[in-house]
Amino acid sequence: MLVEFGQTRVMCTASVTEGVPPWRRESGLGWLTAEYAMLPAATHTRSGRESVKGKVGGRTQEISRLVGRSLRACIDLAAIGENTIAVDCDVLQADGGTRTAAITGAYVALADAVTYLGAAGGLADPQPISCGIAAVSVGVVDGRVRLDLPYEEDSRAEVDMNVVATDTGTLVEIQGTGEGATFPRSTLDKLLDSALAGCEQLFTVQKEALALPYPGVLPEAAENSKKK
Amino acid sequence: MLVEFGQTRVMCTASVTEGVPPWRRESGLGWLTAEYAMLPAATHTRSGRESVKGKVGGRTQEISRLVGRSLRACIDLAAIGENTIAVDCDVLQADGGTRTAAITGAYVALADAVTYLGAAGGLADPQPISCGIAAVSVGVVDGRVRLDLPYEEDSRAEVDMNVVATDTGTLVEIQGTGEGATFPRSTLDKLLDSALAGCEQLFTVQKEALALPYPGVLPEAAENSKKK
Amino acid sequence: MLVEFGQTRVMCTASVTEGVPPWRRESGLGWLTAEYAMLPAATHTRSGRESVKGKVGGRTQEISRLVGRSLRACIDLAAIGENTIAVDCDVLQADGGTRTAAITGAYVALADAVTYLGAAGGLADPQPISCGIAAVSVGVVDGRVRLDLPYEEDSRAEVDMNVVATDTGTLVEIQGTGEGATFPRSTLDKLLDSALAGCEQLFTVQKEALALPYPGVLPEAAENSKKK
Amino acid sequence: MLVEFGQTRVMCTASVTEGVPPWRRESGLGWLTAEYAMLPAATHTRSGRESVKGKVGGRTQEISRLVGRSLRACIDLAAIGENTIAVDCDVLQADGGTRTAAITGAYVALADAVTYLGAAGGLADPQPISCGIAAVSVGVVDGRVRLDLPYEEDSRAEVDMNVVATDTGTLVEIQGTGEGATFPRSTLDKLLDSALAGCEQLFTVQKEALALPYPGVLPEAAENSKKK
Amino acid sequence: MLVEFGQTRVMCTASVTEGVPPWRRESGLGWLTAEYAMLPAATHTRSGRESVKGKVGGRTQEISRLVGRSLRACIDLAAIGENTIAVDCDVLQADGGTRTAAITGAYVALADAVTYLGAAGGLADPQPISCGIAAVSVGVVDGRVRLDLPYEEDSRAEVDMNVVATDTGTLVEIQGTGEGATFPRSTLDKLLDSALAGCEQLFTVQKEALALPYPGVLPEAAENSKKK
Amino acid sequence: MLVEFGQTRVMCTASVTEGVPPWRRESGLGWLTAEYAMLPAATHTRSGRESVKGKVGGRTQEISRLVGRSLRACIDLAAIGENTIAVDCDVLQADGGTRTAAITGAYVALADAVTYLGAAGGLADPQPISCGIAAVSVGVVDGRVRLDLPYEEDSRAEVDMNVVATDTGTLVEIQGTGEGATFPRSTLDKLLDSALAGCEQLFTVQKEALALPYPGVLPEAAENSKKK
Repeated sequence: MLVEFGQTRVMCTASVTEGVPPWRRESGLGWLTAEYAMLPAATHTRSGRESVKGKVGGRTQEISRLVGRSLRACIDLAAIGENTIAVDCDVLQADGGTRTAAITGAYVALADAVTYLGAAGGLADPQPISCGIAAVSVGVVDGRVRLDLPYEEDSRAEVDMNVVATDTGTLVEIQGTGEGATFPRSTLDKLLDSALAGCEQLFTVQKEALALPYPGVLPEAAENSKKK
Repeated sequence: MLVEFGQTRVMCTASVTEGVPPWRRESGLGWLTAEYAMLPAATHTRSGRESVKGKVGGRTQEISRLVGRSLRACIDLAAIGENTIAVDCDVLQADGGTRTAAITGAYVALADAVTYLGAAGGLADPQPISCGIAAVSVGVVDGRVRLDLPYEEDSRAEVDMNVVATDTGTLVEIQGTGEGATFPRSTLDKLLDSALAGCEQLFTVQKEALALPYPGVLPEAAENSKKK
Repeated sequence: MLVEFGQTRVMCTASVTEGVPPWRRESGLGWLTAEYAMLPAATHTRSGRESVKGKVGGRTQEISRLVGRSLRACIDLAAIGENTIAVDCDVLQADGGTRTAAITGAYVALADAVTYLGAAGGLADPQPISCGIAAVSVGVVDGRVRLDLPYEEDSRAEVDMNVVATDTGTLVEIQGTGEGATFPRSTLDKLLDSALAGCEQLFTVQKEALALPYPGVLPEAAENSKKK
Repeated sequence: MLVEFGQTRVMCTASVTEGVPPWRRESGLGWLTAEYAMLPAATHTRSGRESVKGKVGGRTQEISRLVGRSLRACIDLAAIGENTIAVDCDVLQADGGTRTAAITGAYVALADAVTYLGAAGGLADPQPISCGIAAVSVGVVDGRVRLDLPYEEDSRAEVDMNVVATDTGTLVEIQGTGEGATFPRSTLDKLLDSALAGCEQLFTVQKEALALPYPGVLPEAAENSKKK
Repeated sequence: MLVEFGQTRVMCTASVTEGVPPWRRESGLGWLTAEYAMLPAATHTRSGRESVKGKVGGRTQEISRLVGRSLRACIDLAAIGENTIAVDCDVLQADGGTRTAAITGAYVALADAVTYLGAAGGLADPQPISCGIAAVSVGVVDGRVRLDLPYEEDSRAEVDMNVVATDTGTLVEIQGTGEGATFPRSTLDKLLDSALAGCEQLFTVQKEALALPYPGVLPEAAENSKKK
Repeated sequence: MLVEFGQTRVMCTASVTEGVPPWRRESGLGWLTAEYAMLPAATHTRSGRESVKGKVGGRTQEISRLVGRSLRACIDLAAIGENTIAVDCDVLQADGGTRTAAITGAYVALADAVTYLGAAGGLADPQPISCGIAAVSVGVVDGRVRLDLPYEEDSRAEVDMNVVATDTGTLVEIQGTGEGATFPRSTLDKLLDSALAGCEQLFTVQKEALALPYPGVLPEAAENSKKK
């Protein structure tokens, strides 16, 4: 499926393959892994292709790990048996917030894959997903808290924070960084308020997408959350 | 721009960057390079990501070189000055003929980039593109010549041939292979007849796409050429 | 210098080299980079050497980036001119909390390097460091908030959080993750309380170390903070 | 065995090893793979060693794949059982046409290896090779069709074509490229005529070499074919 | 354990893991492997990290192989069963003679690991180590034979030689090189006299270290051998 | 040129390129570097190609460094100006003693390259080579000292030693190793006697080869030295 958050477009796909990594064999548990990548032409200035450079950059791996960790928080890996779900998030066009768009879209791809697995009789538990997962980026720009920064604002944010939350109101991950600056604890609280409100809107959009016969594009996500 | 040939979808982008590779400096000539890649989830069975493996496979490099060589046949590199045009062809969904779809779409992306360069005053010659370029795959399946094979037919073709041609009726590249078999010269002639007719249709579609204010999807390409 | 936090021992060194990376040249600004690594025998079970594998793992790069980002928050890079400070954090023995030990020790190594640079007349501003930086890990184990978890507790923590703070009371970075679980916002608050109190103790120990003629081992750090 | 085509010298060796690649196990079929490489001092200007660069170039892989594909067209892989024949083609001296010299010499090395396997009782079918394989390069230089171009002519050819053919008169592979130019279909026909005539001469030389007790150098190949 | 030879400090560790490399399986024999590495800040001028460069340099591999070969000369690999002893030698600070310090310290780490294995009942033969192993570097500086050169002298030595010997008076390895010069056989004899005398002193220090309940630092080594 | 020592055949080439490595620029001195490699089919059992594995093995690098170091002992690098001589030693067929055959042949290739440079007016000093360089391997097999061991004997040698010497009677390099055994100093002396006598014979053969108009094969080398 293709997720659109403003000018950011991410293609999210979940593939199921038999078997699990060696360290997990004979555990009876499945595994979920994620890979995030950016097409060379996704950014304004073309960036080099990582396959050509011969190694995956630190940022790419860091985000891949974040996406995988976030999705593993919502799924019961015992229910899928010794199978691996590989989630691919490829950024076709980038305008800020690619990692949070990737997580939000990846959840929908995952939910679809699980529905498919269930229909194929591949699930021990008919409801292996315990909650919805969505993510937003929030930041402080010119002293004000902002949700879902486009690239131009993101690059001059004083504080940048990504929040992954569940639709039951709890947190999965929080990563906040002062960009060349530091920030008081009161700012952290305001950023969290804004982020959790943004996630609420995304859960609504995700549910709409999953109600469709086959998931399409999620354009409303960005529209709604930007209206704030 | 996104090219669709049947179930094959390729995203083609042309980016212009200042400067040329070291071996070409101070020649007064520009350079054109191409990179072809396939998203892991593009095929039925998910394939590993080349950036994660740490090297680009032989097939990927071979196609990248073919795309670059084909496009360089139509452009006067002196006209663009010491700049490099990087063409990216990323296969989002694969169902046979990805390399020829990539070349056909890449030509449109290139023509757009050149129009953009010209508008920005970056061209010594206002018409640096001397002809149109399109490519098709043809094959022999069950003893019959077929144009634009989908994957299922491609994988059991007895002969497989890719032809890159110009809209002035000449050839740029021809690659024909017997797949575990050999073929007489008469078959080569029939394959070429079919390929050149297929290219004619693509030139029409390309012109339509380039006439639009901003290039969109090229879905008619596959429809038309498949009707044969 | 060698930092000891309980059974965790990290060697931190800051080296100054002339020049900056290409993308920063002619900016008049310096650069600070960090590399974190673990000796193969640092963990209970010997891990493979990354130089032999031929690539740096995602976790290693992620921590290297975190250490660099944290230290850049306290230093005025204009003051050091176009020079690069490379901070190396090599874990000789690991028992949980290696990344926070690395940041806390790296700050002391950095402060020493800056003093050395100043004595050598290499500083535009005599006080380029604006604040102290320390980091702690906090977690929830068996439902209770704990500071500086040793490995045995860390591996069964329900929530794990790293906090980087300044001695002026502000935050530099906060990274909290539910490990196979999610957590309410109230837990986040408790974890932050504990983390900031832990950092306070570290600032005292750092100041003692920097008051010595040449920085030695920092064993009290762990002792004090563990008493909580 | 050592093949000489004019100033081009290629060492071709076929080694048989037990077993096949993983994807082919338990098929009852053997496998044939080829590796082409050039010694650093083979060209006029010394080129870097690929093992030192740490990756195999696109051109090298493309030719390795071509050699393997060409040889697989003549051998019944069921007859050799689950064994792998590895053909190595190392260019000691290069003066144009290295890929076609490699294929022509590799066929002789393969035929010898198969004779050896048969003598050792390792063949299900006593005649697993169904036809002879040879290859030539042809080109258009200064408007005229030429066979087996030496480097100096090859580098200024307007069209360059490699043809792999069997001694039963059929084609295995045809690769034609306009070098910065395009070419009409009539030129393709003339190039094919010339190529097939050149292959005929090579089949004679190959048979002479295989009639010897142990294959020596094939110097007549170039002499004969150049007389055209 | 940490070995100190003058200003050179090397951390030597021996880890035992179950199993042996594939080529040695079902032989009933164990294996011993060594890895030598230098921390980036160990030298006066910081050197790049090999894990970041993505490959291990020739010098590093050469020394790793030397350390492994030297230690395998003293141990009966049948006695440890199909287990692998991995010896890590990490240079924390370098001032000449790092490879010989590594061998001398690695022997002590190995002897400790074997004692530990024996106590755990993992040895077929209670005394698998047949002799002690130590190594020194000797050289000719300004025409005079010198033992254990510090870096400043080593870098201007005319001849440089490393000798690995046993405490039974025999040689394990001898590597002598003229540095931009050549040397007569009489010099070789004088260098050997000096080296063997130096090793005698190290055997005494090693025995003292192994007599302690847990091996500590070996500072006397350098002090004693330098007094010559 | 092609060197043959018994069944060992090594192709040695010296290429001169303008410029020196970065660390040597503006020194006025030239540089000499060597690369040793083995073709996959050179050994009885085909070995993998290092370019395909993506890294150069430790043994390959160790020998490359040895060859370069040995040749640098005989040449005045000031005389060749800021140029680099790259010596390539490619083993076509291996039967023991490949590294010493490489050094002995490389010296002849170097002497030829220097003669060529001199004729082209590229030398400050007309005689930049101060002495001849040759190398032999010696060993102890079944208790007896042997010169130039073929592979079958080499693999069961108790002691293995390589000696690089000059035709003025001095030593350049000596590397002796007990293979799973140790050896007394008296054995070292006997091995050296034998090695230096072997080198004498090689100097005669080298001079004969260099007296020819263009260096051919050196087959007598092995014959003569083996008669001992």
